[in-house]
Amino acid sequence: MSKMKHLVTLDTLSVSEIMEVLKHAEEFAKGKKMDFRGKVIANLFFEASTRTQYSFEMAQKKLGIETITFNEQTSSTAKGETLYDTVKVFESFGVDALVIRHSEDNFFEQLVEKISVPIFNGGDGKGNHPSQSLLDLFTIWEEFGRFEGLALAIVGDIANSRVAHTNIKIMERLGMKVHLVAPPEFQEAGYDWYELDEILPEMDIVMLLRVQHERHDDDKVNWSQKSYHETYGLTAKRERMMKKDAIIMHPAPFNRDVEIADELVECKRSRIFKQMKNGVYVRMAIIARALE
Amino acid sequence: MSKMKHLVTLDTLSVSEIMEVLKHAEEFAKGKKMDFRGKVIANLFFEASTRTQYSFEMAQKKLGIETITFNEQTSSTAKGETLYDTVKVFESFGVDALVIRHSEDNFFEQLVEKISVPIFNGGDGKGNHPSQSLLDLFTIWEEFGRFEGLALAIVGDIANSRVAHTNIKIMERLGMKVHLVAPPEFQEAGYDWYELDEILPEMDIVMLLRVQHERHDDDKVNWSQKSYHETYGLTAKRERMMKKDAIIMHPAPFNRDVEIADELVECKRSRIFKQMKNGVYVRMAIIARALE
Amino acid sequence: MSKMKHLVTLDTLSVSEIMEVLKHAEEFAKGKKMDFRGKVIANLFFEASTRTQYSFEMAQKKLGIETITFNEQTSSTAKGETLYDTVKVFESFGVDALVIRHSEDNFFEQLVEKISVPIFNGGDGKGNHPSQSLLDLFTIWEEFGRFEGLALAIVGDIANSRVAHTNIKIMERLGMKVHLVAPPEFQEAGYDWYELDEILPEMDIVMLLRVQHERHDDDKVNWSQKSYHETYGLTAKRERMMKKDAIIMHPAPFNRDVEIADELVECKRSRIFKQMKNGVYVRMAIIARALE
Repeated sequence: MSKMKHLVTLDTLSVSEIMEVLKHAEEFAKGKKMDFRGKVIANLFFEASTRTQYSFEMAQKKLGIETITFNEQTSSTAKGETLYDTVKVFESFGVDALVIRHSEDNFFEQLVEKISVPIFNGGDGKGNHPSQSLLDLFTIWEEFGRFEGLALAIVGDIANSRVAHTNIKIMERLGMKVHLVAPPEFQEAGYDWYELDEILPEMDIVMLLRVQHERHDDDKVNWSQKSYHETYGLTAKRERMMKKDAIIMHPAPFNRDVEIADELVECKRSRIFKQMKNGVYVRMAIIARALE
Repeated sequence: MSKMKHLVTLDTLSVSEIMEVLKHAEEFAKGKKMDFRGKVIANLFFEASTRTQYSFEMAQKKLGIETITFNEQTSSTAKGETLYDTVKVFESFGVDALVIRHSEDNFFEQLVEKISVPIFNGGDGKGNHPSQSLLDLFTIWEEFGRFEGLALAIVGDIANSRVAHTNIKIMERLGMKVHLVAPPEFQEAGYDWYELDEILPEMDIVMLLRVQHERHDDDKVNWSQKSYHETYGLTAKRERMMKKDAIIMHPAPFNRDVEIADELVECKRSRIFKQMKNGVYVRMAIIARALE
Repeated sequence: MSKMKHLVTLDTLSVSEIMEVLKHAEEFAKGKKMDFRGKVIANLFFEASTRTQYSFEMAQKKLGIETITFNEQTSSTAKGETLYDTVKVFESFGVDALVIRHSEDNFFEQLVEKISVPIFNGGDGKGNHPSQSLLDLFTIWEEFGRFEGLALAIVGDIANSRVAHTNIKIMERLGMKVHLVAPPEFQEAGYDWYELDEILPEMDIVMLLRVQHERHDDDKVNWSQKSYHETYGLTAKRERMMKKDAIIMHPAPFNRDVEIADELVECKRSRIFKQMKNGVYVRMAIIARALE
């Protein structure tokens, strides 16, 4: 196993390694400062992103690290260069680490043994999104102080969500009880499926996923935005069914009045913007772990 | 009234507050340095810009501030997120201030009471462009040492210009005599309109506005670029009609030989590139005012 | 002659000036650090680039210089502003130097006498690419310790390559024996042309150029990618014909199995990624030369 502190998937991290990242994130949340002046990180986004890209950039800037950001979609460079070759360019430039998002599942497998600097996976295809999952875990841990026994529902387009795929595995490993809710079009084999209204009163955490309108041909789905909201969305009425201390999460961007009622986005239970805040601390911990 | 030192409109700033910004800009022009190391500002441009965006970035870098720049037009992120939600993302990341340009008039009204960091308006719709107006004022004040009694002509597409709208209000408040000149298509109700050649010899300042060809369907306007230049443009002949110490201004980008004769762009009277230089100092003053 | 330390073409640099840049690059390669904190460089790319743009940015960051990067192709700014006017904008902002790439041959001629800060040419039309040429020279010098008498082949689309045009002139000036190989469509008047297989065994350096598929209408060229590889590409069989210590170079991006066999990209002879690494050191030397 490589001694390099990549972060490409949570599958190969032990629970104690994960807890170390969360504890370091907590220190950053409490104001800890570290100074990596002189280091440079390249952020290579072969797939568009706002939250993940800028959150990584913010984490780098807070650590005194210089950032270089490459967006394939907005760059007009000659296409056809392979992922590996582009990554080698930035390695050759002498950067100290790489953040990479790419639409290919497990793209990092072709890189980790050949690239001499740490790689942080900013999301691969429908596979992994480890930094998002770690920020979700940090938000839950900050709230409840434990994972064991917590009941969580993930609601929405699970088949297409790398956030869901990553969270299901790691949360079950941490002893959480994960319940999945989705319209038939968003379900996939190998899981049990629940009805939202049946499980809602017992959940500690309700995690909503974005309906990715741009990926779905309207003809193929059997619901309108309004009917989705009524059947699978978190309405004001459903919010009142939730447990006393239960919280609402969403990886964002969210569709108001589709996955979640407009009035609930910033309600007392919502941790949606808290998750974004925590994302910076978690990414600071991921970077510090690799560069220390 | 919020204690936060936003800069979203000049309407709510007193004359003494404006003079304070101009005096601070003058100190920066004379070489004053300030160090805001550790601060981060996000520049959110929902509408394209070159001058305003890079001028704000330059001001931030000169103050030791880290910059994050988001361009909605060149980002390929899923559309549909509201302005408020995108702004909340960057607030959640922990930035120290926000520069925002958006095509909606007075977009900032929905933000100022809800966002916990200073907002600098980089231009809203056809409404306000306070940092541009302050750099115009700084350039005039540097030149004449006063505002009271100065005669200024604004020439061009006034109806579509947030620069004009902002300048008319603040310049009249400062005691300047503002004269408006425009083809009928660019006039709007509520103002008096003048003929350029009649007022030109009495003006201390001639401020030209850009003909925004990309906004005007050629069929709807009754002039060609050539005829515009002859009737409303600053030709070499007209320049000779100007007062001895009168100056030429333009917020840029300019169309050579449309609003202004090619040979006049860098003539002795022109302050066009001086305005750009001053823009950095004024924006340093705006940022310093908010972060001090 | 201007005292400003522009770097726009190698034609006006003496051999000793070139050697000074290479020696300074070597010091940076060995770990020399310089700190230009407080300086800002604007990178103006009117033509797309990955390698050159990010390499210059990396060099700037390693020198402690703040970077501002403008990409005309991904910016949505109103077109029609002249090159000169855009460059004047950034000069007015007070940047300390400018990197400029533009599709117009010798674009810098209209700028060098009028702009008050150093200009580094990041590539002009089919004309000059001095920083690329200097990194090629640095890579050769590092390898052989001399230029005089070295035999080099440049293979590929020479007519359209500013890299080739710049290298031919400077390498002949440095006493190298340059041999050109190209399909008839890529040849141009004024040079001698060779057959690859005839000269290959005597070459110290084989420099391959990219086949720019996007510039060539497939109907106009008389070869497929496969036949190009067989006739003009560096195949495994040809590599075995090379001299004992001969090296392979390519300015990149490269097309695997077109100009060069996939398996040779990172072979023992290849200096392709070394060239990219050296590009950062050479650009640090170019910048330091101008700002010192």
